[in-house]
Amino acid sequence: MEIDVALVRVWAQRAGELLLHSYFNRVIPERKLDTSVVTMADRAIEDWLREQILAHYPHHGVIGEERGPIGLEREYVWVIDPIDGTSSFVAGLPMWAVSIGVLWRGEPLIGVIYLPVLRDCYWAIAGEAAFWNDTPIHVAPPEPPSPNDWIAIPSTFHRAYTIHYPGKVRVLGSVAADCCYVARGKAQAAIIGRAKVWDVAAGWVIVQAAGGVVCPLEGTLPDWSTLLHTVRLPTPVVIGHAEQVQRVCAWVRRISV
Amino acid sequence: MEIDVALVRVWAQRAGELLLHSYFNRVIPERKLDTSVVTMADRAIEDWLREQILAHYPHHGVIGEERGPIGLEREYVWVIDPIDGTSSFVAGLPMWAVSIGVLWRGEPLIGVIYLPVLRDCYWAIAGEAAFWNDTPIHVAPPEPPSPNDWIAIPSTFHRAYTIHYPGKVRVLGSVAADCCYVARGKAQAAIIGRAKVWDVAAGWVIVQAAGGVVCPLEGTLPDWSTLLHTVRLPTPVVIGHAEQVQRVCAWVRRISV
Repeated sequence: MEIDVALVRVWAQRAGELLLHSYFNRVIPERKLDTSVVTMADRAIEDWLREQILAHYPHHGVIGEERGPIGLEREYVWVIDPIDGTSSFVAGLPMWAVSIGVLWRGEPLIGVIYLPVLRDCYWAIAGEAAFWNDTPIHVAPPEPPSPNDWIAIPSTFHRAYTIHYPGKVRVLGSVAADCCYVARGKAQAAIIGRAKVWDVAAGWVIVQAAGGVVCPLEGTLPDWSTLLHTVRLPTPVVIGHAEQVQRVCAWVRRISV
Repeated sequence: MEIDVALVRVWAQRAGELLLHSYFNRVIPERKLDTSVVTMADRAIEDWLREQILAHYPHHGVIGEERGPIGLEREYVWVIDPIDGTSSFVAGLPMWAVSIGVLWRGEPLIGVIYLPVLRDCYWAIAGEAAFWNDTPIHVAPPEPPSPNDWIAIPSTFHRAYTIHYPGKVRVLGSVAADCCYVARGKAQAAIIGRAKVWDVAAGWVIVQAAGGVVCPLEGTLPDWSTLLHTVRLPTPVVIGHAEQVQRVCAWVRRISV
């Protein structure tokens, strides 16, 4: 592999520190202005990440939330989200992340997620171990939930679904963070809404390297080449240990309208 | 008033920093051990807070999560929660808080909440302004929710209720944090489960000083003298701007069994 993961971790951390110190909690109270400040932060960081990537790997492709895709047909494609969890960021909540994924020949290869407020880095290379900073991590074993166990769910889940999970649910506000806490075995599973590719590219590498699976809640998932072009997932997904994911899927019901 | 609020803020911050640096993310992976480590942290910090309080105000009463009540009939009673959001704390999540409330003649007078991971202090004196660090804060105006607005709900809400709120919901993992984000106008409202007195004593002062109300979801709320003895609230409550609270109450339905 031609990519230096230690360098990607440094980029994610620098981007996160820049966001934390120059933009976080500096957003102006009026809600419309919030949006433009966060867009400014998002763009500045995406541009900075793209510069690093293309300076080191000029023949790679890049797709991100704020700027157009470049070279999606290339062997390596970087899939970046400068701020995953922008509405958490705007709300002054701690759960938002810098997410950097790399695909190799259409398959996720590297995932690096940095949570600036916690100063935590989660990362993995496909087929190897997953790490929280320098500690190897694993998804939780598929035990039946006790009342203190928890899963993460999307912030809009209540509008379309009910869930009969006997433990706690949490809404963290960042899909990347959902993946991290599943990979670390803190959440038993997470339900992720119809996310965009840059929300999940890094997280799924980490979850899978930690022993978890990604399972569509409805229908099937297309391959990554298709996802890069459709951008948004066609279905919510459930992530976690394979057996736990099956349980969670069985607890979810679509609200009949 | 005989209490120095600046001093209370210093205590909350010192307690929070001690938790952050000596206990947070040091919990041992096995879940049962987690519980005992967090109990140890909870007790150590509660003891330290009690020492500060009783050294400065020896004739005051104190009630906390970990140690028995002292002098609940006294003019001033401190209501303390060394770690509000213990399961967030155990999970390595960022949302947990040191919560210090003071009642005067059975009415909440002072609220100080410190969020160590964010290094944010929220505080208020009843009848005066509420503050996020040194910035005055106010609850959100009672606008109809747009899709990006959010309310906080409890982690076990899905077991007994549905909610038809048209925005987002979040489960932050700390009742004290729920109060802070409502007071700051970031959350439109919060639904708080059947919390204990030390979870809400500080937060309600802050929410009310920020222009909000506390409204029982079902039935009525007893006075604080009663609450100090029952410890647990008899009903969930909704906090926020009075008009928004009415809307939220109307969106909640108990699941028929």
